[in-house]
Amino acid sequence: MTPSEPASSLRHLVSISHLSTPEFKSLVNRAEYHKKLIKSGEQITSQPLQGKTIALLFTKRSTRTRVSTEGAAVYFGAHPMFLGKDDIQLGVNESLHDTTKIISSMTSCIFARVNQHSDIQELCKYSSVPIVNALCDTYHPLQAICDLLTIKETFHDNLENLKLAWIGDANNVINDLSIAALRMGINVAIATPQGVEIADHIRAKAAEVSKETGAKIELTHDPKVAATGANILVTDTFVSMGEESQKAEKLAKFKGFQINSELGALAAPNWKFMHCLPRHKEEVSDDVFYGDHSIVFPEGENRLYAAIATVEAFVVNKGKFVI
Amino acid sequence: MTPSEPASSLRHLVSISHLSTPEFKSLVNRAEYHKKLIKSGEQITSQPLQGKTIALLFTKRSTRTRVSTEGAAVYFGAHPMFLGKDDIQLGVNESLHDTTKIISSMTSCIFARVNQHSDIQELCKYSSVPIVNALCDTYHPLQAICDLLTIKETFHDNLENLKLAWIGDANNVINDLSIAALRMGINVAIATPQGVEIADHIRAKAAEVSKETGAKIELTHDPKVAATGANILVTDTFVSMGEESQKAEKLAKFKGFQINSELGALAAPNWKFMHCLPRHKEEVSDDVFYGDHSIVFPEGENRLYAAIATVEAFVVNKGKFVI
Amino acid sequence: MTPSEPASSLRHLVSISHLSTPEFKSLVNRAEYHKKLIKSGEQITSQPLQGKTIALLFTKRSTRTRVSTEGAAVYFGAHPMFLGKDDIQLGVNESLHDTTKIISSMTSCIFARVNQHSDIQELCKYSSVPIVNALCDTYHPLQAICDLLTIKETFHDNLENLKLAWIGDANNVINDLSIAALRMGINVAIATPQGVEIADHIRAKAAEVSKETGAKIELTHDPKVAATGANILVTDTFVSMGEESQKAEKLAKFKGFQINSELGALAAPNWKFMHCLPRHKEEVSDDVFYGDHSIVFPEGENRLYAAIATVEAFVVNKGKFVI
Repeated sequence: MTPSEPASSLRHLVSISHLSTPEFKSLVNRAEYHKKLIKSGEQITSQPLQGKTIALLFTKRSTRTRVSTEGAAVYFGAHPMFLGKDDIQLGVNESLHDTTKIISSMTSCIFARVNQHSDIQELCKYSSVPIVNALCDTYHPLQAICDLLTIKETFHDNLENLKLAWIGDANNVINDLSIAALRMGINVAIATPQGVEIADHIRAKAAEVSKETGAKIELTHDPKVAATGANILVTDTFVSMGEESQKAEKLAKFKGFQINSELGALAAPNWKFMHCLPRHKEEVSDDVFYGDHSIVFPEGENRLYAAIATVEAFVVNKGKFVI
Repeated sequence: MTPSEPASSLRHLVSISHLSTPEFKSLVNRAEYHKKLIKSGEQITSQPLQGKTIALLFTKRSTRTRVSTEGAAVYFGAHPMFLGKDDIQLGVNESLHDTTKIISSMTSCIFARVNQHSDIQELCKYSSVPIVNALCDTYHPLQAICDLLTIKETFHDNLENLKLAWIGDANNVINDLSIAALRMGINVAIATPQGVEIADHIRAKAAEVSKETGAKIELTHDPKVAATGANILVTDTFVSMGEESQKAEKLAKFKGFQINSELGALAAPNWKFMHCLPRHKEEVSDDVFYGDHSIVFPEGENRLYAAIATVEAFVVNKGKFVI
Repeated sequence: MTPSEPASSLRHLVSISHLSTPEFKSLVNRAEYHKKLIKSGEQITSQPLQGKTIALLFTKRSTRTRVSTEGAAVYFGAHPMFLGKDDIQLGVNESLHDTTKIISSMTSCIFARVNQHSDIQELCKYSSVPIVNALCDTYHPLQAICDLLTIKETFHDNLENLKLAWIGDANNVINDLSIAALRMGINVAIATPQGVEIADHIRAKAAEVSKETGAKIELTHDPKVAATGANILVTDTFVSMGEESQKAEKLAKFKGFQINSELGALAAPNWKFMHCLPRHKEEVSDDVFYGDHSIVFPEGENRLYAAIATVEAFVVNKGKFVI
């Protein structure tokens, strides 16, 4: 492992948008590397973060995010300190500024799973250690690293000319996944309902990356257009945590957006289904979710290796990427 | 340490019933071995689970179970990841199938403390790593390993012809303790109130083990019959967690079942009192609980060594027992 | 490191009052030593508590106390096991006696953050391992170690003839801080409102330590008298956790006690402001709190090194101090 030159300043992982293409590819490659090492059953001997603590600041419950980030900290010898909403209420008893300065002064990294993207921005502003965005309302970079690792493993490095179709909400997951896929040379089609639109800043970033790598992005409101010829169909919940009161309204809007065998029939032969979990039946039928096309469980496991690559790059190597 | 031949498939610890007699004895012996090692004050040098995570899936609060299982994970270098009822709600946001597949793909073992035994069965069905039943409504194997270690230490290996009397509920603790005692050659007498009966499958298993080891089992509704000549008097709470609404009714049923000096007077000289804790005054008088006959605190401490032996056999040695 | 002769019995950290002056100074010196070591970026190689667990028994939420004590346990290789109010309710399902005996039999140390000082006393009475008072209603020794480290760093060992002025409540923080400052040769002035009086046992202890070290203590009800010529102005919240219902009444009592630039103008040139955090505007103005005189963030970070020195002395070295 030969890290590149030291970064001149503290690096945070906020979004795939904020990484260069080589940096993002490095994270996927290192995730793959560590997965192979772990699967080989070799005992880990190097624990570069021994004696160190990584804080997990979680204002929302999140099984996969928690298990994977704790596992990644432990892999390098660090202690993951879980601070849930009952342990700490960001901004309630103390300003986010003060809390961030204090926690970052006693830890080596903060994984933050928050509601508002602005909380991530504040954390980055005041922290003296790397902030990793472990999920906010705008981005989900760890899922994107995980997803591209899963695609790389499934399609054996033949990524160019693949088509990834997102059929669902214009949310945090696709915001990072679209940029991530484009960086890897994968064409992206996104179908969202009328009135549910990908944000302008993501469109602009996607156009920029598309120009860089030659991969194309297409936005549509027709799930069939997106699914046609796609190698990978991806979706996420239509009703996010905290939106339960708008459930009926949202489900009406997403009529026709369920990924099922009918939609799958339009896809390329041997297409794959992905989902960041947990799933609900409205967005994917049981036969697809539990069927041969589904790679959701290897995808879930890959969250661990995505977190490991992230801890390596941002904490162990202090923002220097293995290019 | 010379592990036996590799198990052909994944081994879970669900109940003492599911172990062979040599396997169970091996767990007790290894618990004793590790206790001596720890008490000798030697610094632990081998950490075979370094960099690994063990999940603690607890749907109910449990002091002893938590402290002992966390301690056992740590002893071998693993990180215990506590997931309580506020962290994860089994089967609520996601099916138990999906949650189990995901958590087991990122961890080395799952200790599960659940309500329904069926949850343990589902976990075993879908997990790719060992499941340890850390307490369910039907079994409590870690307590049984701990209790037989405590008895072995107290009676210095002269276990044959001992009589263990359980005076209390027909519950998870005695379900495993009765089989465990019979496996070690200890005679068992169980007194439960009229209408509170040991389950048929436990009776059948007890008869089978009795035939194997020659130790006898006796079921009665008279505490005095059970206590007479017994070397060990054991009980547990009459009102389990979640049964608080039936408290008055249950207490009426257990009239005459309190272990006190009157009942102790029927026991063998130098009899011992055991209890898995926490205790209430209705099931044992203060003078017995805090008196010379009581070995409840060494028993409580032994939970740690029972958990250590379990992690060693099921996780470190992957289901191979040191016979 | 040459530990002094072994202590004849188990040592707990309950209050700075219970330490000798050399013992207290040793804690501050070791905190400084470990801070330098950590800041030098050297990888920690010795993990004397590897495989061991330290329990954190917290009946109240506490960010700094939690992060610092977890970090200190991890620094020496121990696993910090956090038991919050939802994990364990001291004295509710089980007597404090029973819980203490059990938890201490399976761990290497208990950090306790409780409401009542009597809980600390009970823990010390029944525990077989060191109890560290991580905050109770009467004492806060970890904060005092941290504060004297911060003062030592700021004033470069020229501590004699310094004046520390506390302007605020007669609470747990000043109870230990006053004794701590006097032990280091620093003069102390305490201004509390009329009717809010430093407890007799603290006055007596302060008089005793003052006689030993020659540092002086002065009690007043006038913030200006305390602040005049002071090198360090310190305060804490006027309304402690749990006192929210008495807020208006308490604030009325503390009128004129806010530390602001007007009060600072009476202090010595280059005076410093300290606060154990979290802060509220009623006790300190924004311009002081975030201004050049404030050393609250280095002070907060020093909680980690105070906890490290405490784990070293009470757990690693079993109550033997490096004098």
